[in-house]
Amino acid sequence: MGRDGEARAGVLRTPHGAVETPTFMPVGTKGTVKGLTPKDLRKVGAGVVLGNTYHLYLRPGPDLVREAGGLHGFTGWEGPMLTDSGGYQVFSLARTRRISEKGVEFASVYDGSLHAFTPELATKVQEDLGADIAMVLDECPPANASREYHAESLRRTARWAERCKEAHGRRDQALFGIVQGGLYADLREESLGRTVEVGFPGYAVGGLSVGESREEMLETLSLTAPMLPADKPRYFMGIGDPVGILEVIALGVDMFDCVLPTRLARHGVALTAEGRINLRNARHRRDLGPLDPECPCEACTGYSRAYLAHLVREDELLGHRLITLHNVLFTGELCRRARKEILAGGYEGWAREWVSRYTGS
Amino acid sequence: MGRDGEARAGVLRTPHGAVETPTFMPVGTKGTVKGLTPKDLRKVGAGVVLGNTYHLYLRPGPDLVREAGGLHGFTGWEGPMLTDSGGYQVFSLARTRRISEKGVEFASVYDGSLHAFTPELATKVQEDLGADIAMVLDECPPANASREYHAESLRRTARWAERCKEAHGRRDQALFGIVQGGLYADLREESLGRTVEVGFPGYAVGGLSVGESREEMLETLSLTAPMLPADKPRYFMGIGDPVGILEVIALGVDMFDCVLPTRLARHGVALTAEGRINLRNARHRRDLGPLDPECPCEACTGYSRAYLAHLVREDELLGHRLITLHNVLFTGELCRRARKEILAGGYEGWAREWVSRYTGS
Repeated sequence: MGRDGEARAGVLRTPHGAVETPTFMPVGTKGTVKGLTPKDLRKVGAGVVLGNTYHLYLRPGPDLVREAGGLHGFTGWEGPMLTDSGGYQVFSLARTRRISEKGVEFASVYDGSLHAFTPELATKVQEDLGADIAMVLDECPPANASREYHAESLRRTARWAERCKEAHGRRDQALFGIVQGGLYADLREESLGRTVEVGFPGYAVGGLSVGESREEMLETLSLTAPMLPADKPRYFMGIGDPVGILEVIALGVDMFDCVLPTRLARHGVALTAEGRINLRNARHRRDLGPLDPECPCEACTGYSRAYLAHLVREDELLGHRLITLHNVLFTGELCRRARKEILAGGYEGWAREWVSRYTGS
Repeated sequence: MGRDGEARAGVLRTPHGAVETPTFMPVGTKGTVKGLTPKDLRKVGAGVVLGNTYHLYLRPGPDLVREAGGLHGFTGWEGPMLTDSGGYQVFSLARTRRISEKGVEFASVYDGSLHAFTPELATKVQEDLGADIAMVLDECPPANASREYHAESLRRTARWAERCKEAHGRRDQALFGIVQGGLYADLREESLGRTVEVGFPGYAVGGLSVGESREEMLETLSLTAPMLPADKPRYFMGIGDPVGILEVIALGVDMFDCVLPTRLARHGVALTAEGRINLRNARHRRDLGPLDPECPCEACTGYSRAYLAHLVREDELLGHRLITLHNVLFTGELCRRARKEILAGGYEGWAREWVSRYTGS
């Protein structure tokens, strides 16, 4: 484990292999990183792949996934996996939901059918899904919820965390706790204290990237992260843009996930060291050069910008896939490079230069 | 070259490699077989890949494709390619079109803009696209057009064929003629005579699979195919279902194309030796066995029916891609097997048994 300021370079060990950190975790919402096979994921250097418990619980259902050998057997991805608890989607997707001490009732985003997640059920479902890392069921209030609401919510989330830990039985699966508390430094500290008191092999910072400004997010994270146990992995939920990644790494985060790189790809936007490239932009139409001359991915070595731009404009499946490959590789490479700089002790200066080139400022 | 009854086993030689016939040609309408890279296409044994001149002329335009090194350079597919002349799409897609001796005016299906194809332009555009095989501009009247219309049309198509041949200059590209004449045996014979008189290195039978019954199609083809020059490749335009493929092979066809295998795949329908499998069907939801235990493709060896069914139900890109890989491989394997049976002299009996298993009859 190396350290450079608050930034950390470590290794996350799981039953399905070790992953060097900091690491970006691509999101396979419904059991697939859209358009990519497990082989594609290996080729672009994916470490941990995420699955969303909310979606997989509703479709195809945890029983089937368990029968298929868990998400690893079902999807064919043999590397490390992490599932969220479903809480975030319950709170962000459901129009109808009712929260109580017992758990949360919600209407399925697919067909409106009624369901209830308790800490025990969210844990059981994740055991069936069988990822290497599972998450406790938490409530993720909106950024603008009142201080009173956040205080009440974080305490309930801590009680739920205890029930999750109690319910969790799989020895080959790690269960991580989640710190909430909105943008209130004292509430964050309280939530952290309560969660660490329950005790988990890893901790996530949740409830950020949910509508607050980037400054507020970073300030809150900068107060929270250093208080997390130094010997446990730290997971920031919901960041995937290059600048944000470098910022949270600087604050001591080891793992992070976001649909951004893959979602941007499906909208025809590619990430490069010199910023985002929107392939729908007219100036790429006749550009026979590569998308990113510095990138070794399939999209950049096999095709021209003009061809990729054509695929994007025609909404061709191959365009979505090729740019997804590129963006996942790009984001992974950024993390691998960050790790090297941390180990070499020059992270801060390197990151400043990198951001300056990326933002053109 | 082997023969078994009317069925033929040959080799089609092109500047981008030789292809054993009979061969199914997957359709890459807009310069991509939807969802597949050139590497994918090689893995599933694709021979000739088709491009549609109508679409590529409108988007991204022949100038850009020529600059990029033709369709081969633009798309990265290094194997043989064929482009149609655009005629079929002009007649099937355009709501507004006007045909004259000079050519055909039409409104773009994309934006309604007005365009005109002449035999000379269709030839020039295909030279720019640079496929190994180009097609003459023909009119493809609907199956129910009158005898008088078909007679007039086939004579114009023959005059256009002569103009195409006159305009065609690329020595590294073959230009094929097209026989029309609707369902009228004498008109087919007249069209064939006129087209062969112009003289081409290969001949297509067009104007079938356009709304007539399968029986009418086969009867017309059975009268036409044997009259085509025996030493030239024979291309049947627009067949891709397994039974139809075996039927046209029996009548002496060497090459055929259709969007069916790839389009079915995107609708979640897989082809197997025991018939079509619709993966949306409830009985596949919990089936942890392979899609087709006899198939060596990525979809069949890497995933369960249950996982593929899940992808299809969720309309996931990966589902489209995996089933496309399967259907293209399946259709190619069918042709390779047919070739072996022709060479062994047992085609008819084999095909009868194959169809009986496929149709469950």
